[in-house]
Amino acid sequence: MILVRQEIGDVLRDFRLQKGRTLRQVASKASVALGYLSEVERGQKEASSEILASVAEALDTPISVIMREVGDRLAVLEGIDAIVPDALPDDFASDIDAELVSQR
Amino acid sequence: MILVRQEIGDVLRDFRLQKGRTLRQVASKASVALGYLSEVERGQKEASSEILASVAEALDTPISVIMREVGDRLAVLEGIDAIVPDALPDDFASDIDAELVSQR
Repeated sequence: MILVRQEIGDVLRDFRLQKGRTLRQVASKASVALGYLSEVERGQKEASSEILASVAEALDTPISVIMREVGDRLAVLEGIDAIVPDALPDDFASDIDAELVSQR
Repeated sequence: MILVRQEIGDVLRDFRLQKGRTLRQVASKASVALGYLSEVERGQKEASSEILASVAEALDTPISVIMREVGDRLAVLEGIDAIVPDALPDDFASDIDAELVSQR
């Protein structure tokens, strides 16, 4: 069974690492317990919508960006095309392909 | 504060209505209590990832399709472009615009 919390956790961790922040920094800024955020990132705990909003804000990332990334990764897991390559310039499509491959 | 569960509830209800199913039918097929599903649709309860997966399956809809729609609606709420209109035929872009306006 594909679990949304697993993808949410992965996306939150990836955005955090991309921004060079520690678990401690994000947990503190979002006012959530460090152990709790760690469990959310590992897909072991469901984050409430309020916590998701706080963590997204602490990451300076719109919640829509996080949830779209979650949707795109779920689509890859489900074998549904994440993007329509023909609608994008060739270079951009190649970048996305490379990104998807690197995530596997 | 923008709450993810509110959008998830709206999307689940919209997909259910689009398919002409009743709350009772979907709750029964997904093996969740009718009152619980109703609260989830109204954004009053967080659905666990397991419940989301069951409801998506009961709706014959990939969970990625549901979460992408959630992401798109959150983007509209956050004032981030949900689509790139230039990449779409003019008629389609107009349909989307009309749809977005009608949701407000």
